[in-house]
Amino acid sequence: MPKAELEKVKSDLEKSYQEFREKKLNLNMARGKPSDPQLALSMPMLDELGSSADFHASSGEDCRNYGMPEGLPELREIFAAMMGVPADHVIIGGNSSLNMMFDTVCCGMTHGFSGCEPWGRQRHLKFLCPSPGYDRHFAVTQYFGFELVTVPMAATGPDMDVVERYAESDSSVKGIWCVPKYQNPTGITFSDETVRRFANLKPAAADFRIFWDNAYCVHDLTGTPDRLLNLWDECKKAGTLENVFFFASTSKITFPGSGVAAMAAGDENKKILRERYSFQTIGPDKLNQLRHLKFLKNLDGVKAQMARHRAIIAPKFQTVLNGFEKNLAGKRIAAWSRPNGGYFISIDVLPGCAKRVVSLCAEAGVKLTGAGATFPYGKDPNDSNIRIAPTFPPVSELEQAVALFCVCVQLAAAEKLLRA
Amino acid sequence: MPKAELEKVKSDLEKSYQEFREKKLNLNMARGKPSDPQLALSMPMLDELGSSADFHASSGEDCRNYGMPEGLPELREIFAAMMGVPADHVIIGGNSSLNMMFDTVCCGMTHGFSGCEPWGRQRHLKFLCPSPGYDRHFAVTQYFGFELVTVPMAATGPDMDVVERYAESDSSVKGIWCVPKYQNPTGITFSDETVRRFANLKPAAADFRIFWDNAYCVHDLTGTPDRLLNLWDECKKAGTLENVFFFASTSKITFPGSGVAAMAAGDENKKILRERYSFQTIGPDKLNQLRHLKFLKNLDGVKAQMARHRAIIAPKFQTVLNGFEKNLAGKRIAAWSRPNGGYFISIDVLPGCAKRVVSLCAEAGVKLTGAGATFPYGKDPNDSNIRIAPTFPPVSELEQAVALFCVCVQLAAAEKLLRA
Repeated sequence: MPKAELEKVKSDLEKSYQEFREKKLNLNMARGKPSDPQLALSMPMLDELGSSADFHASSGEDCRNYGMPEGLPELREIFAAMMGVPADHVIIGGNSSLNMMFDTVCCGMTHGFSGCEPWGRQRHLKFLCPSPGYDRHFAVTQYFGFELVTVPMAATGPDMDVVERYAESDSSVKGIWCVPKYQNPTGITFSDETVRRFANLKPAAADFRIFWDNAYCVHDLTGTPDRLLNLWDECKKAGTLENVFFFASTSKITFPGSGVAAMAAGDENKKILRERYSFQTIGPDKLNQLRHLKFLKNLDGVKAQMARHRAIIAPKFQTVLNGFEKNLAGKRIAAWSRPNGGYFISIDVLPGCAKRVVSLCAEAGVKLTGAGATFPYGKDPNDSNIRIAPTFPPVSELEQAVALFCVCVQLAAAEKLLRA
Repeated sequence: MPKAELEKVKSDLEKSYQEFREKKLNLNMARGKPSDPQLALSMPMLDELGSSADFHASSGEDCRNYGMPEGLPELREIFAAMMGVPADHVIIGGNSSLNMMFDTVCCGMTHGFSGCEPWGRQRHLKFLCPSPGYDRHFAVTQYFGFELVTVPMAATGPDMDVVERYAESDSSVKGIWCVPKYQNPTGITFSDETVRRFANLKPAAADFRIFWDNAYCVHDLTGTPDRLLNLWDECKKAGTLENVFFFASTSKITFPGSGVAAMAAGDENKKILRERYSFQTIGPDKLNQLRHLKFLKNLDGVKAQMARHRAIIAPKFQTVLNGFEKNLAGKRIAAWSRPNGGYFISIDVLPGCAKRVVSLCAEAGVKLTGAGATFPYGKDPNDSNIRIAPTFPPVSELEQAVALFCVCVQLAAAEKLLRA
């Protein structure tokens, strides 16, 4: 495009942007936060445990009192089915799978795995961070002093050549963060080959661990859901079960913050963690477990609940994608994901433009996830990736927010091209 | 008593013991566990948050969604009143104050306090354990590799000469476990002088911390409740607020395992812990907080609930004390506590007899807390202390259990005296 034409385009975009500013919007696409209609889906759960309910587990124990530190057997079975692991390897926790991941890293720091020195007594620790990825994962290992190593994300999952090179040659590399299905933020699902390469990883460090956070394992958005190869089964074949910790939660099935979290691990790891939990707590909240069990009942109940979520949020994803298609397609200034599930759409704008786009949106009243947040240390080397969270605002607000966003993407691109 | 007479007494006791065995009892006085009628007191709480309830905090935020990591302001105020601290220094946690204590010790291990090297990087750590005391406290510091140092308990609290000698001269001593009111298991409340000496402690280690677990702060059993001097105020006067972590929970106010826990700390410590929590979790279960707030309302509501608990459990304590009085008084073979609150009665039998008593009771179908459990490493140097937990069994069962217990105490004493 000739410079004069580009100046004209930029001037038109500035006018559009100014019009958006005058609307004084106050919208938020920053957090993967369920919307009010989604919260309403779980309201019946709160009536399951009124004062006239039966408070006994199937084993006969009173869920209102101390006991049953491993959690309700039937709820362990639901998590087992969701995660694709055997129920007797599931440990139910409190309300937050992030908390279980933090505690697991912390267990490595203070007590170690596989008989190795605790991580806290080893020098210079590294952790692999497939990026763009989930900022709160990276932050946990940063808090404990790990050097965060960026691993590029491909359409098939983390770049396994890079993963293998680091994990198999450097014993200071102690683990990797993974969201294997509908990854945050790219929405991609790891390919069968990626899963198999994880199962067959031969880490240099005996205490290397894969943190397999299956946060969106049942969170389909379309009639053509992704299918994730079962890592537990593949590891069992390869004899590498002790390399992995599995995580999931109901935070985006029932209530964020008032859900139930769970993890699973092989015999040796589970023994280490169960021992730690036996010192850490007398047990998790079994009434909330019972409430969930009565409401969800089994895996079919979970799936039915997720279909209801899908009916609410799939149109929101479509709204964002339609906006991108209409305003950005064919212009070679942005590329975005079209996920079959999960909570996010990931968009790459022109290198050097992500911060500018987020800042333009913020000035016009639309809050986005901070540019760079999806990379270690909050620094996107290309300043290109932006995570869009479409679930919380109503469709009408989303339409406005996306229209503004597309103006900002184009305006930032025009500014960049005119500088060049 | 002449030997022949003692033989006769022993033979009568053996006969009584045999009669108890034939009853095939199956009773439990081992755990500080609320009884079914106590659980029933909190059932109305479960109706406070049905699907038609208002789910908004007074600040307008939706308690069903992410946010408010510090917890509901009004619930923080209730805990502040219970603990005797300012509300803005309270951090609400999950369902377990033990978990908050574990995490706080763990924070010391991995990140340290007062700018000192993390405990995990320092050599040879020690922790003071007033004994008899709470086994789960001691176990946390044992898990993290501390040497447990026994501090004798007096009627006024831990022997402060010993506490001061260790804490003020040895920088490897990093803290002390305290249950200042209705201590587990002795039932005593720390005297004003003890509290003042804690406030004026000048620890050799800058990262020494008092773990002030006020687990029974509102758990009165009589019309003459104990009064605990306010440590927060005393520390403020002495300029030593950063020496202390304060803890409490509703585990024995509402539901064990489904209650709410809280802690409080001075500015610097609170900042360290809040930072840790910001990495560890997105936030605690606010629906359970809201449920508690609607049910308890304020400190008066807490006190009214505790009066209902007292009506149920005070007669159980009296049953045990009556049994002791009737069967053991004046025989110089046992001394026991007569607590004004809390969950336990502590009894010292003749040195070398505690294990034998617990084992005799177990064989006759009455389960007690393991002898030695109230001392570091589970080893009572005198093999003398036994913790009685009277809250769970109904009075009729307690009568039988206590009668058997008294037979066992006398039998073990007779066996010992005949060996001598």
